Amino acid sequence: MEVTSPPSADAIDRLRAIGREFHGRGWSLGTSSNYSVVVSRDPLELLITVSGKDKSALGRDDFVRVNAHGVPCDGSGRKSSAETLLHCLIADLVPSLGGAPVGAVLHTHSVWGTILSAADLPRGSLRIAGYEMLKGLDGIGTHDTFEEVPIFANAQDMQELAARIRARFLAADWSDPKRPPFHGFLLSRHGLYTWGRDLAEARRHIEIFEFLFECVARSRMLPGAVTAGPSRGQQQHQQQQ
Amino acid sequence: MEVTSPPSADAIDRLRAIGREFHGRGWSLGTSSNYSVVVSRDPLELLITVSGKDKSALGRDDFVRVNAHGVPCDGSGRKSSAETLLHCLIADLVPSLGGAPVGAVLHTHSVWGTILSAADLPRGSLRIAGYEMLKGLDGIGTHDTFEEVPIFANAQDMQELAARIRARFLAADWSDPKRPPFHGFLLSRHGLYTWGRDLAEARRHIEIFEFLFECVARSRMLPGAVTAGPSRGQQQHQQQQ
Amino acid sequence: MEVTSPPSADAIDRLRAIGREFHGRGWSLGTSSNYSVVVSRDPLELLITVSGKDKSALGRDDFVRVNAHGVPCDGSGRKSSAETLLHCLIADLVPSLGGAPVGAVLHTHSVWGTILSAADLPRGSLRIAGYEMLKGLDGIGTHDTFEEVPIFANAQDMQELAARIRARFLAADWSDPKRPPFHGFLLSRHGLYTWGRDLAEARRHIEIFEFLFECVARSRMLPGAVTAGPSRGQQQHQQQQ
Amino acid sequence: MEVTSPPSADAIDRLRAIGREFHGRGWSLGTSSNYSVVVSRDPLELLITVSGKDKSALGRDDFVRVNAHGVPCDGSGRKSSAETLLHCLIADLVPSLGGAPVGAVLHTHSVWGTILSAADLPRGSLRIAGYEMLKGLDGIGTHDTFEEVPIFANAQDMQELAARIRARFLAADWSDPKRPPFHGFLLSRHGLYTWGRDLAEARRHIEIFEFLFECVARSRMLPGAVTAGPSRGQQQHQQQQ
Repeated sequence: MEVTSPPSADAIDRLRAIGREFHGRGWSLGTSSNYSVVVSRDPLELLITVSGKDKSALGRDDFVRVNAHGVPCDGSGRKSSAETLLHCLIADLVPSLGGAPVGAVLHTHSVWGTILSAADLPRGSLRIAGYEMLKGLDGIGTHDTFEEVPIFANAQDMQELAARIRARFLAADWSDPKRPPFHGFLLSRHGLYTWGRDLAEARRHIEIFEFLFECVARSRMLPGAVTAGPSRGQQQHQQQQ
Repeated sequence: MEVTSPPSADAIDRLRAIGREFHGRGWSLGTSSNYSVVVSRDPLELLITVSGKDKSALGRDDFVRVNAHGVPCDGSGRKSSAETLLHCLIADLVPSLGGAPVGAVLHTHSVWGTILSAADLPRGSLRIAGYEMLKGLDGIGTHDTFEEVPIFANAQDMQELAARIRARFLAADWSDPKRPPFHGFLLSRHGLYTWGRDLAEARRHIEIFEFLFECVARSRMLPGAVTAGPSRGQQQHQQQQ
Repeated sequence: MEVTSPPSADAIDRLRAIGREFHGRGWSLGTSSNYSVVVSRDPLELLITVSGKDKSALGRDDFVRVNAHGVPCDGSGRKSSAETLLHCLIADLVPSLGGAPVGAVLHTHSVWGTILSAADLPRGSLRIAGYEMLKGLDGIGTHDTFEEVPIFANAQDMQELAARIRARFLAADWSDPKRPPFHGFLLSRHGLYTWGRDLAEARRHIEIFEFLFECVARSRMLPGAVTAGPSRGQQQHQQQQ
Repeated sequence: MEVTSPPSADAIDRLRAIGREFHGRGWSLGTSSNYSVVVSRDPLELLITVSGKDKSALGRDDFVRVNAHGVPCDGSGRKSSAETLLHCLIADLVPSLGGAPVGAVLHTHSVWGTILSAADLPRGSLRIAGYEMLKGLDGIGTHDTFEEVPIFANAQDMQELAARIRARFLAADWSDPKRPPFHGFLLSRHGLYTWGRDLAEARRHIEIFEFLFECVARSRMLPGAVTAGPSRGQQQHQQQQ
């Protein structure tokens, strides 16, 4: 199924606006970050940012259409982001496992996500527990819960990294259709991937995660703060050694 | 007493501006926060944000009129914020206890408020003492005082939460008409409620509290800082254990 | 000597711009801060912000002319800021002691200034040593120096506070005309006063001090950081007790 | 080779935009910072900011052309930045050692760079290791590397400082044309120098370094964080003494 030109043009403008906003908020500096929207479901095709662009000034031509294998399929000759395969993996895998449909995937590099992903890599995940703001993640209806954000060691070999992510996703319990086990994941010292039914939901997930990352990190910096997750216990253990 | 349409339209535009501002300042991210203004006093009616909206882009229709019980009364069929009952409680209870009239109620979710509300929940309140900026709270005329901000454990059951808040308000001494015991309260890992005679005063209270939360939290992070309230002593005690 | 109306109108607009800028940068929240410019030197008269205004939205009428004793002298009936006397003191005293002429006085309330003024009040001053940015203060030509910013316990009695400030200024050595001993002072848990030959210089001093306050505070928070001033040693001493 | 007037006019406007942006981001406050672009290669000539200007409001005349020795050569009579010699050194030395061509040099003063340059001066450099964002530095293609940013003790004698920088650059191994040993350096308690083939690359390097400085500094502040470089070990050693 082909999508017509106008929706893509609109998607491009909305992704450009995301780039301007996220650069301004410090989440997409340098040439970091990549963003995609699903423009065709069967066969799967994504419109994704071209590799190495300044996200504060994305042009209309800084996007390329790729197929389910991350291969450009629009004849433009443009090179998609190095991490295209992760976008394809998410868009393909999450709905097939019972998660909500994926219409957009966003990847950002924030300071808070970067430092927490380094600090908690030994645990394998970042636990975010007990915050009202968790209700901003799709399907979560109470603060009395937690989000366990997987952290993967960073890699430049996308096939190898994608295989690790796939294995972790497959091992999770997706039986609750309203509460998928993951709303995003972190690459260590790198950044956050999240997604949503559409670009607005994916953008909200970025905003929610970034707020929560800042809360978790600053809470750890606050003397005497009582934190809910096991990560605090671990860090106190490390401090006392 | 019915209010006429133009005041409501104006109130809506001012609340939309609050949403844009507070989102930009990081106090109303995701779909968090809710805002209301009292549009009728007898019977009590509030105009309040509709549930689950992005506060950076509130539309003219993202508001609903509710009665003193938090039930929509404008026939629009819109669903008001889940926390509507807390707005009604404040607007009803504070003036009846001897506090100033309440014309607006604002609820925000900031990082600093969130982490302090978690850290000091065991104390039951956050003490803010000795700051000149306290004079920005209605009725306070000197820095040589303190504000004891109640912290309530978060809940999704608004009836239960409202009952706890009501009990705490009723137990306080409201005998000084110029200096009510509370200008706001925190829900743990959630956010701040404050109010004012009108929207401008409520907005100023948010600004004052957010500044003071940041001062209190950063002071605790500063090695060797001498803080005025008992919370510092408590935290040092915890650190030494 | 009377100044003509146009300069005042221009000064008002520049002070309003300062208010918008400083509010946006978090230095003049709530109804905090006050700003003045000297509009007549002999006799001394200042144009100063009216008490209790939101600095993000100063109107043309939110200013009042006061004489050397801080008494309004423009017949407007407007009430000047509670701290008017401190502005008059600075504008009168600094040049008479051998400092540069004072054309503008700015008072701001930042988070960093507030928490440092509380932490270092026991020392009586905040030492800022070794920073290149010190060269932005009038008359300082090298990083290899220090600024000792006096800290005064906050007070609501302006006569009493002014007397303490005057005594400290009189006790200092003003013999180097290019390097006055003070470019500003802090009121504890309150904020910063600084001044300049004109509004641009006073604004630059605010910007320099705020940058340096943030550097000093964050340096103390950085584990293992070596700081130049005695305040670090003091804080380590306190930590080890 | 003379460059024609229009490119200079364009360069001036782009440098003025850099000033507005960097001031807004807190990297060029007061009269700090200086920026240059190479306008002629043979003989070497730079267009550089005039000394002591507010970078948020650079005018068309706030630039001066200097030769390879940092001497003004445009007959304007304008005084170039005190640190002009460092710009000339970089533009001359880096390409001659095997680094990429230098088309622009940017110098900024951020809080994070300032405090890290003070903390790690005893080590002589700041190590930034393992971050994906390192790939934003020219020639770096993997996160699994490190950037060792030299830190020089600050000085007001530019000849002496330039000699120290030159010696350090000459002592480094520049044999990998795609991965020069330095993309920038820090002056202690002062700021960052970086460069690029053109202004866009130099601006990107500033943005990358600033992000990484903030990550490194905040990581150190995070209890229990595991950092990759040796600086963490050093700081823990210092803390335990």
